[in-house]
Amino acid sequence: MTYGYLATMRTKAGRRDEVVQILLGGVDGLRGAGCRLYVVGVSDTDPELIWVNEVWESKEHHDASLQLPGTRAAIARAMPMLTGEFTGQELTVAGGLL
Amino acid sequence: MTYGYLATMRTKAGRRDEVVQILLGGVDGLRGAGCRLYVVGVSDTDPELIWVNEVWESKEHHDASLQLPGTRAAIARAMPMLTGEFTGQELTVAGGLL
Repeated sequence: MTYGYLATMRTKAGRRDEVVQILLGGVDGLRGAGCRLYVVGVSDTDPELIWVNEVWESKEHHDASLQLPGTRAAIARAMPMLTGEFTGQELTVAGGLL
Repeated sequence: MTYGYLATMRTKAGRRDEVVQILLGGVDGLRGAGCRLYVVGVSDTDPELIWVNEVWESKEHHDASLQLPGTRAAIARAMPMLTGEFTGQELTVAGGLL
């Protein structure tokens, strides 16, 4: 059963688009790491919040990806622009079009 | 810019899996209606909640899909199994792997 993770992160004022670019910068390597879906979304209704929807082959693939050097470097770059307010919801993907 | 919609719906006790099957039953027609992504997720941590993540070519495509006869029939079938507690968040998709 594939593993979903639905996250939000709040950025400091005016830093959202920089964080979005960091999040999108690692997309090329995701598929090889077991990622089947990775969508970064924003909304004018809450202009400092970023939504990230991910689907991975397994929770283990997702957890392992967080240890990749590129991922760790991206997290380190983004962290100073974040407020520390995160939400995360693990999901079991029942199916769909993806 | 593609349009994202992140929804949750709460089902009455014991009805979640039936509603999931209804949601997945219309997947075949989605791509032709302008849907680029449709993921149905569940979680053991809240066993009566269903998450639906959608990406459409535009908000207009999404709105139009709700008027399709198949969609309307599916909604009518699911409604009696839902509590009426819905959340929805529109998103602008910034990019990713999808």
